[in-house]
Amino acid sequence: MAHASQTSPVGILGGGQLAMMLGEAAQRLNMPTSILERNSASPAHAAHFPVTIGDWRNPSDLKTWLASLSIVTFENEFVDTGALREAAHSNLQFFPSLDAIDLIQDKLYQKEFLKNAGLPVPRFRSVSTMADCEACADDWGWPLVLKERRMGYDGKGTFVLRGPDALDGFWSHYHAGRDLMAEEFIPFATELAIQVARGKDGSVAHFPVVETFQSNSICLWAKCPALIPRNDATAIKQMASTVINQLNAVGVFAVELFYTASGEIFINELAPRVHNSGHYTIEGCKTSQFEQHIRAVSGLALGETSLTYPGVAMLNILGEFDGQCDIQSPSSLANGHAALHWYHKQDSRRGRKLGHITAWGDTANAALATAIEARKEIELCPKK
Amino acid sequence: MAHASQTSPVGILGGGQLAMMLGEAAQRLNMPTSILERNSASPAHAAHFPVTIGDWRNPSDLKTWLASLSIVTFENEFVDTGALREAAHSNLQFFPSLDAIDLIQDKLYQKEFLKNAGLPVPRFRSVSTMADCEACADDWGWPLVLKERRMGYDGKGTFVLRGPDALDGFWSHYHAGRDLMAEEFIPFATELAIQVARGKDGSVAHFPVVETFQSNSICLWAKCPALIPRNDATAIKQMASTVINQLNAVGVFAVELFYTASGEIFINELAPRVHNSGHYTIEGCKTSQFEQHIRAVSGLALGETSLTYPGVAMLNILGEFDGQCDIQSPSSLANGHAALHWYHKQDSRRGRKLGHITAWGDTANAALATAIEARKEIELCPKK
Repeated sequence: MAHASQTSPVGILGGGQLAMMLGEAAQRLNMPTSILERNSASPAHAAHFPVTIGDWRNPSDLKTWLASLSIVTFENEFVDTGALREAAHSNLQFFPSLDAIDLIQDKLYQKEFLKNAGLPVPRFRSVSTMADCEACADDWGWPLVLKERRMGYDGKGTFVLRGPDALDGFWSHYHAGRDLMAEEFIPFATELAIQVARGKDGSVAHFPVVETFQSNSICLWAKCPALIPRNDATAIKQMASTVINQLNAVGVFAVELFYTASGEIFINELAPRVHNSGHYTIEGCKTSQFEQHIRAVSGLALGETSLTYPGVAMLNILGEFDGQCDIQSPSSLANGHAALHWYHKQDSRRGRKLGHITAWGDTANAALATAIEARKEIELCPKK
Repeated sequence: MAHASQTSPVGILGGGQLAMMLGEAAQRLNMPTSILERNSASPAHAAHFPVTIGDWRNPSDLKTWLASLSIVTFENEFVDTGALREAAHSNLQFFPSLDAIDLIQDKLYQKEFLKNAGLPVPRFRSVSTMADCEACADDWGWPLVLKERRMGYDGKGTFVLRGPDALDGFWSHYHAGRDLMAEEFIPFATELAIQVARGKDGSVAHFPVVETFQSNSICLWAKCPALIPRNDATAIKQMASTVINQLNAVGVFAVELFYTASGEIFINELAPRVHNSGHYTIEGCKTSQFEQHIRAVSGLALGETSLTYPGVAMLNILGEFDGQCDIQSPSSLANGHAALHWYHKQDSRRGRKLGHITAWGDTANAALATAIEARKEIELCPKK
């Protein structure tokens, strides 16, 4: 394991589970972190990482926090880049850059970037009137996908309209004051993702292509390797390289993709950060996405990314009720073939990601089966 | 819907959920059934189909039951064909034939048949000593798969031995008195299945290729269509045709297959009957496997087998505790996008198949996600 000593900690904007797992990776590398988070009871705080309580949107809070930092990274792309620019001192570097965050946080700009880079994306258009949407449906057919350009995640802000009536209803009840874009609907057979890292020296390392499974746009599980032809996996790695090189980014990015029954590949969206689809890498790859990100932003050499088992799977643990939630779990899951990551969320509700299980085996499917069995050994219960 | 009137009912050997669903299909075709089952409280009985209580292995019980029948079919291939031959009268036809049952019920004969038919199967050999097994492992490498030749289902009687120590342990504790065969281990990426029907006129109809997901050899779900290249689906249909034509069989068969990451296909095993992997066809195909089987054995034209929705999934409902089990379920599952089939088993235990859910959607994955959501709406509880 490489070690490094930093003069100043790595700043992480946001204190959720991604920050917590970044903190865990940094700690193993002997790399201090400093986290800014609004809520006093965050996963990063519960895991005993140093958390500064403050509002990301408030330049004065930001300024105080940033004063002792020289490197800042993100667990969340929905930050206020204007406030960050205002608060930043001259020795501060953001990874990825605020320009990259600006581009990615607007789904329209993001898609334009991808298209201009020659990457395959669903057809899309900016829309501002119902007539614009109708024109899209005339050209591409129904269903029509409408997306809020900013702030959407886990399917929030994405609407699949099945026909003119749905568009009518959407337009009269929903659209006011929102910047929207339209996309053609891709009848994908499955969703794929890849994590890609770029170091300060421009070196690029890909994780394997992972298959993700969503219900109501929430990821239920991911399994790796994805069962796709080798050529398609190679093509996806090339796409990920193009993305991260063209953005001149440093750190780990996730590229989420659609894969159709006939083997067509479309990039769905980018995350300029570690991502749920890469949680399997903690036990599943020789270097995790979290360690890789810390390595990248702090100028260490990128780590080896191959799988540690022939098959790995990650199963999200989702809230089953509203109200603070605790967990009862045996000390060893699935006879030692699975590992638990619990996020210690203060605030839990039905469907919210509260933790995840990683499992491993001879194949991705065997690992998923083990993860499903391990999940049965864990009980969620109201916190006393 | 075609109708038919039979002078005598279709005899079904076995009264489990497969017989129950065959009975439901026959009823809709106005085709009476007569079921022979040992247990007085079977799924077929609970569903109010006429059940004769008797022992399949007892020629006298069989003779009484068979007297009024001219057609007999099976929900289970582990029947005593000797007793059936002894009890059969001259006007009785078995579909499939008792010769086909004999062949399939012995996994070694089944594999020899498949190999001789030019179909791709894992390498296999009859073994009767530990030295035989060691020779197989020398030739094929570890792990080595040992199978009891007869009576195995849901992984029972199948042993994956990881190395010489495991073989040693197996041999000293387990092998006595069992007829075994050895198979090379195929590191399959996923399992596939296909239902194929053959009519009395020799016509053949294939259902789509379905992808199945097993945990501890128990099917958790199946989803259709399988995400495999079109050429591979065509090859699998041809294999299924070869199987059913060479056996000159009448009725529905299931062919279970292994599919590797590099797209290799191996036949794992045959079921000479309707099969769990085809339950999705009840709502998911224009004709279900159950109706198709009744059509075939009673000489009706085979029905159309295409999907009724772009994607369909079946999720097994497995017992969560030992002891008689009841179900609490809303009247409509997943807002009407899923259907429940409950088997009314008297005897339930952890892991036993108690029912299944079918769900449908734009894709197989969307249907599976819906089935998983629907499963949460159903609660299993001890029977009062």
